[in-house]
Amino acid sequence: MNRYLTLAETLGSRIEQGLYETGQRLPSVRELSSEHGVSLTTVQQAYRWLEMAGLAEARPRSGWYVPPARKLPELPRMGKPNLRPTDVSDWGQVQDLLDLERDSETVQLGRGMPDVESPSLRPLQTALAREGRHAGIASLHYNDIQGVLALRDQLCRLAVDAGYEITPDALIVTTGCQEALSCAIRALCSPGDIVAIASPSYHGMMQILKEAGVQVFEIPSDPVHGISLEALEVALDRWPVKAIQVIPNASNPLGYTMPEHNRIGLIRLAQRFDIPIIEDDIYGDLVYGWPRPHALKALDEDGRVLLCSSFSKTLAPGLRVGWIAPGRYFDKVLRMKYTSSGPTAPLPQIAVAEFLQKGHYPVHLRRMRRQYQRQRDVMTEWVRRYFPEETRISQPQGGFTLWIELPEAFDTHALDSMLRANGIVIAHGNIFSATGKYRNCMRLSHASVFNSRTEWAVQKIGETIGEILSSKRESKTCLNASRCLLPTVSP
Amino acid sequence: MNRYLTLAETLGSRIEQGLYETGQRLPSVRELSSEHGVSLTTVQQAYRWLEMAGLAEARPRSGWYVPPARKLPELPRMGKPNLRPTDVSDWGQVQDLLDLERDSETVQLGRGMPDVESPSLRPLQTALAREGRHAGIASLHYNDIQGVLALRDQLCRLAVDAGYEITPDALIVTTGCQEALSCAIRALCSPGDIVAIASPSYHGMMQILKEAGVQVFEIPSDPVHGISLEALEVALDRWPVKAIQVIPNASNPLGYTMPEHNRIGLIRLAQRFDIPIIEDDIYGDLVYGWPRPHALKALDEDGRVLLCSSFSKTLAPGLRVGWIAPGRYFDKVLRMKYTSSGPTAPLPQIAVAEFLQKGHYPVHLRRMRRQYQRQRDVMTEWVRRYFPEETRISQPQGGFTLWIELPEAFDTHALDSMLRANGIVIAHGNIFSATGKYRNCMRLSHASVFNSRTEWAVQKIGETIGEILSSKRESKTCLNASRCLLPTVSP
Repeated sequence: MNRYLTLAETLGSRIEQGLYETGQRLPSVRELSSEHGVSLTTVQQAYRWLEMAGLAEARPRSGWYVPPARKLPELPRMGKPNLRPTDVSDWGQVQDLLDLERDSETVQLGRGMPDVESPSLRPLQTALAREGRHAGIASLHYNDIQGVLALRDQLCRLAVDAGYEITPDALIVTTGCQEALSCAIRALCSPGDIVAIASPSYHGMMQILKEAGVQVFEIPSDPVHGISLEALEVALDRWPVKAIQVIPNASNPLGYTMPEHNRIGLIRLAQRFDIPIIEDDIYGDLVYGWPRPHALKALDEDGRVLLCSSFSKTLAPGLRVGWIAPGRYFDKVLRMKYTSSGPTAPLPQIAVAEFLQKGHYPVHLRRMRRQYQRQRDVMTEWVRRYFPEETRISQPQGGFTLWIELPEAFDTHALDSMLRANGIVIAHGNIFSATGKYRNCMRLSHASVFNSRTEWAVQKIGETIGEILSSKRESKTCLNASRCLLPTVSP
Repeated sequence: MNRYLTLAETLGSRIEQGLYETGQRLPSVRELSSEHGVSLTTVQQAYRWLEMAGLAEARPRSGWYVPPARKLPELPRMGKPNLRPTDVSDWGQVQDLLDLERDSETVQLGRGMPDVESPSLRPLQTALAREGRHAGIASLHYNDIQGVLALRDQLCRLAVDAGYEITPDALIVTTGCQEALSCAIRALCSPGDIVAIASPSYHGMMQILKEAGVQVFEIPSDPVHGISLEALEVALDRWPVKAIQVIPNASNPLGYTMPEHNRIGLIRLAQRFDIPIIEDDIYGDLVYGWPRPHALKALDEDGRVLLCSSFSKTLAPGLRVGWIAPGRYFDKVLRMKYTSSGPTAPLPQIAVAEFLQKGHYPVHLRRMRRQYQRQRDVMTEWVRRYFPEETRISQPQGGFTLWIELPEAFDTHALDSMLRANGIVIAHGNIFSATGKYRNCMRLSHASVFNSRTEWAVQKIGETIGEILSSKRESKTCLNASRCLLPTVSP
């Protein structure tokens, strides 16, 4: 990371922890320069970064000060409940999002891609290279369908941090979290079955449900507590739901981490109706607070939680290394895994196991969590600055995506097309719903280290939204006006 | 490869091509030693190898001679036709086969694993290491769902050798052939649908059909022509078959390469009943003859053939790089691929593309085809020598597995358990059927370079079979004898 970012981190943390009071003068550029042994320019860059994140404000000819506590932007509203299960709508729009932008000038804010250029990933590259060079029987052959044992050993250690205990023989390594989720659904459901899912939710999950021929009952979720237990209870009471699917930690796309009380309520409901829960914990290790929150599986008493995760968000998606702890559904899930793609490639598993075993993982996570949290603040600030006033913004507790809600009539799908012409990609809201809800919402990723084009892109998005909104208002006025001019015909 | 094997190759080819006549004296050890610049011991080793393969015989104090033309062993018989579609039986036995033998002393003749220790794979390891070391955005990120373009370009070149033309945008890279087959089945079939499949066939395919909830109509296949077109026609005529699945080249496990006439007949049938064909061409590049036979897809006129393949048998299964050319079913298959495991890992794709692009692939194939063919001859010879006389053996046209048929009442599943206690693994026949047929058959792999333990293992298998058979005969005799001794009770 650049020196100024490191300094901004340090200062930012101090300000956030309340070491300076509102209105208090912050250390001068000269003081910080000599304290940290960095140039004056570096300190000035750090302060400008803190200003962007709303943690410092400049007063001309006086210096930098702690600004008054920010009024946080309003949170997105909870979606409307569905009355019945529905089929998942088509995937053409998801495909658009997945299409690679080969133009390096494109600002990609649409996809949930982590920053894979962090120097803290270098030991992983070393491990990949070493394993590639020696590629022997172990990495070129078919391996255990359950995955490389050395990796499963390490996954058991990570499980402890996530609050549950597991042994290597109860884990199955998968080809990314996508395969874990897909195997879970196909192990539990037949075509025509119903799955209750927190809404909005990960678009890839929607498509898994669609291709499995499963119907979806979208349960509204609020950006603080997650899935509405009241709405869920009504659904379970009335419909033969086969499974519940949730993302309890740093949920995609809303960013909430479910409070303990709600987790207990969710588990109780699942027990009462005897329904399995598919937990997607892919962002669990990227929750900003330390220690990381427990997985829902930590509360699982009878093996009904199938925990799915991967290193796609924490390390790199191209590794395609995920896993599933399928509880009492182990046998069926293992069969699904075998028929889905055979054993997962051993080489990246061996490299990841080495990366974990040598202790590089926590170091990397610490760095990425800080980067993502700081950039969340900065991007939030940009959205406040450049987007229309009525914009609502999520306050994610982890991960690297913001969920943004615009006025109700707005269509982010149309916005997306206009932005692509300008080399900007966003994720429009309706792909996060099985039924095309959230057309007035969008998800913005803040993973990659920001550069000058990032702020330009957010500003451009805001301006384009403003233009669309004002042209709508005008056309409305116009329409009303023209109506007034029409000759009145007597009935 | 050892020097003696190289020499044995050369001499063996000359003998097979008829450069020496039956009964003719072959060059002396001394002559060959000076001709090829190798030691006398090397030449003697080469001759012993040729003797094992039945291509040379020693006459005491005289030298080596071309033996009389061998009477080929009888081929396995065609299986009995089914009367109706059936569910696939359970997979526990497949799981046994897939369980890794961690004991390096185990002689693994059960799994269809290629030899991954050939020096001709070294450039691939180099490419893997280079790509791992530099692992940048391209190899760590999500990639195109269709796969890395550089690899798809190379696959289009391979398609030309297989007799069909394709463009990169009509190909989808998959996580092994298993994922290709799985996506094909799920794209074409819903639970309860019927698939007609050449029998015996690949056990992984059976399990894919089972987990997809699909019923199987097993069509008997003979070890020369492949799937019985007569039986297939009857099945298509009577049942609403949704897809036909075949392995036309170096078929697993029977080893046949379907004659052109039968291929045309198969395509005509599929056209007449308007049914898609799922072609598994995974062994196509390992057919011993040169040039390789065309894929069935070469005869496809209307996009009804979904060609599935991978580098798992030609290079290394641990790469998990396969592909599918799904013809007119492209869109549906792509959706299945996305929901199955997301995009396939880019790193091994990039390495394989480099290996192909630099021309290493044909060199490697040439070497492996020779090794597999030579070892087929040697293992056939061992089976003739050590197995009971009534044993029938396939004459595979490619690949690295032999299909062996024992007397009808024999149970190779029981044999397998006995052999495992001796550190030998075979594939028992019934896993190659949806309904547990072929209990008296087994598949033996001859991929890895033979060592002293290989011949010992084949001999041990033969002896164990002999013991079981003779104990059966005894117990029968005994039973008859004891019956005779029973006091006769008047009715």
